[in-house]
Amino acid sequence: MLAVFEVLGVLAFAAAGIIEAARKRLDVFGVVLIAAITAFGGGTLRDVLLGNKTFFWVQHEELVWAIIGIGVITPLFFRARHIEITQRAIEWPDAIGLGLFATSGAQMALDKGFSPLMAALMAVITTVFGGIIRDVLVNEIPRAVNDHQPYALFAFGGAWLMWGVEQLGVDQNVAIPATAAAIIAVRFLAIVFKWKLPAWRL
Amino acid sequence: MLAVFEVLGVLAFAAAGIIEAARKRLDVFGVVLIAAITAFGGGTLRDVLLGNKTFFWVQHEELVWAIIGIGVITPLFFRARHIEITQRAIEWPDAIGLGLFATSGAQMALDKGFSPLMAALMAVITTVFGGIIRDVLVNEIPRAVNDHQPYALFAFGGAWLMWGVEQLGVDQNVAIPATAAAIIAVRFLAIVFKWKLPAWRL
Amino acid sequence: MLAVFEVLGVLAFAAAGIIEAARKRLDVFGVVLIAAITAFGGGTLRDVLLGNKTFFWVQHEELVWAIIGIGVITPLFFRARHIEITQRAIEWPDAIGLGLFATSGAQMALDKGFSPLMAALMAVITTVFGGIIRDVLVNEIPRAVNDHQPYALFAFGGAWLMWGVEQLGVDQNVAIPATAAAIIAVRFLAIVFKWKLPAWRL
Repeated sequence: MLAVFEVLGVLAFAAAGIIEAARKRLDVFGVVLIAAITAFGGGTLRDVLLGNKTFFWVQHEELVWAIIGIGVITPLFFRARHIEITQRAIEWPDAIGLGLFATSGAQMALDKGFSPLMAALMAVITTVFGGIIRDVLVNEIPRAVNDHQPYALFAFGGAWLMWGVEQLGVDQNVAIPATAAAIIAVRFLAIVFKWKLPAWRL
Repeated sequence: MLAVFEVLGVLAFAAAGIIEAARKRLDVFGVVLIAAITAFGGGTLRDVLLGNKTFFWVQHEELVWAIIGIGVITPLFFRARHIEITQRAIEWPDAIGLGLFATSGAQMALDKGFSPLMAALMAVITTVFGGIIRDVLVNEIPRAVNDHQPYALFAFGGAWLMWGVEQLGVDQNVAIPATAAAIIAVRFLAIVFKWKLPAWRL
Repeated sequence: MLAVFEVLGVLAFAAAGIIEAARKRLDVFGVVLIAAITAFGGGTLRDVLLGNKTFFWVQHEELVWAIIGIGVITPLFFRARHIEITQRAIEWPDAIGLGLFATSGAQMALDKGFSPLMAALMAVITTVFGGIIRDVLVNEIPRAVNDHQPYALFAFGGAWLMWGVEQLGVDQNVAIPATAAAIIAVRFLAIVFKWKLPAWRL
């Protein structure tokens, strides 16, 4: 199950990366690189921090091929159809990846015997890190720290929720997808209703 | 002793991170994230490079809680008191963290049998890396490479000084705090008297 | 042989880093740091990802000294001679480093039993990562994703070429330098004739 979530999360984040790279008019290599970093960056850092020996993208080479293919083809498609990419288009695949990676990252930490706080940190790292590098590479202040929208908060809270539900005896095969769905749903609501974190008024 | 130095260094660097994030008006999550990266970034990279299996923030979970708490509360405090944050406010906690992390990072490398040059590099990496990511995340050229003030130089020189003093037979429990105090004192002097590295005149 | 290639690649990339840092008028520490990151960044990430226990710059301390020395002396030399540094000056040492690191990185992965795709990815990571951090640190969108010139493509293609030639039974001591020379030659052609990747026309 965690593997399925990782695959879907990788594809969702890769889509978000391609959209961002296309908006910035990067070259073909830039599109593929940004897509790959967005998709694999968070999970790779998590694996380094958790001491996992083998990385996800080494075990699943077909995913690397998929991202190279999608990264080359999608821009051609956008171009042929004259599709205008809005700034908000990135948010939907990003929300799906958020739910999938938050739960898989947190569960991986719990399975290794880490505390729920560490699991929640891993959920945040897995979901946020790839996007942060993506934004840094296109020379913007990362959305994750600057857009005043709740995002990482859902990964953090979701991990605690999942841990709590599992403590109550709910089976992982129920708890993980339920939490992922809850995170995605709340994030969708946050996008639609433009929820904001409290702003600075100095 | 190294553990005490790490704790104090983490708190000093976290304060520097919060000040920087508050100046940039980041959201609550941004403040906590920047504080955590500034505080733990350098030590984590050092641990990865030295091959340490467990990270400092995994062993000391209470520090993570402390930074989350401080990151949420401090901005409220600034706001209530209408405290204006100057650009130079960041420099004082940063100088304290510099002395603490330079000596603990260098000693850790020496204890592992690395050469004094590697110890000096680890001192630089531990002290500089967190601040560099902090500056990159808020989209500025890192102070560390660009402000023409001696900073990393003190970490580099301090590590050699500490190593030399220990070679002369001075006990570590004296050499480490003495070197840390010396680094902090010299850095304070550099701030007060605005010492500059030689500038370019092309 | 791989070690010789790494040494030469480190020196070539360090030269590119110094040129970039000098153009941006960074301070002495900034020049040395950028040179070191450009030179060692890609190889270090490769070693972390491949699970190598000892880093190249830990084994070859004299290289660290060399970069510190070159980083301090070169700017003085530029200054004394009033040499104007053009933006394109960086491209020649960069091309040499590209060929050397692409082949050594790919061969290292093949020697560890990784697939040719992973070897090609390692060639890209080794060659591109140091330069990406260098550009991020001086607050520019990395050349590697944005300049529309084929660069990483040559590392990727070169790794496949080298793998194919070795599959045909050619000795490594011939295949590696021949591939490196081919990559450097093609990259030189790309610079001279200003080859471009297809641009966006949305």
